[in-house]
Amino acid sequence: MFVILVYDVEQKRVNKVLKTCRKYLYWVQNSVLEGEITESKLTKLKMELEKIIKKDKDSVIIYRFPTKKYQVIETIGIKKGGEDNII
Amino acid sequence: MFVILVYDVEQKRVNKVLKTCRKYLYWVQNSVLEGEITESKLTKLKMELEKIIKKDKDSVIIYRFPTKKYQVIETIGIKKGGEDNII
Repeated sequence: MFVILVYDVEQKRVNKVLKTCRKYLYWVQNSVLEGEITESKLTKLKMELEKIIKKDKDSVIIYRFPTKKYQVIETIGIKKGGEDNII
Repeated sequence: MFVILVYDVEQKRVNKVLKTCRKYLYWVQNSVLEGEITESKLTKLKMELEKIIKKDKDSVIIYRFPTKKYQVIETIGIKKGGEDNII
């Protein structure tokens, strides 16, 4: 499946959250990652994130889609990251 | 259609970008908005954003979907904003 993950976490946990997400997804722009991922890997990612974040302060949203095919992605301005631009 | 909009713009333009996006979409979390929007309203929104942002520095990504029905949205941690929580 294709997922978009957006996080809004306290500064001190940003690095750990980002590093964890990057093991599974690619970075798109500030606090946004995307990627194709299997159900089992997504479960792993969520378990790892649940250990890092403070559930009463931080927020991570995962949008799940059956496939990337049915979505249109438009960028206004510069393209900071993306599949072909892994940093 | 349903859209997810994520922005990564310089601090001095954040307020203006957020204010503009909020005319059309609802705030979800830091730098993320969502909502049902018509094609013509999305065109208007994009035109307004193009006037505000610096295209060589800022980035706005719009994910477009035919309908919200086919997507699954999961939140880990707190739900900061959303349709039922307009601030």
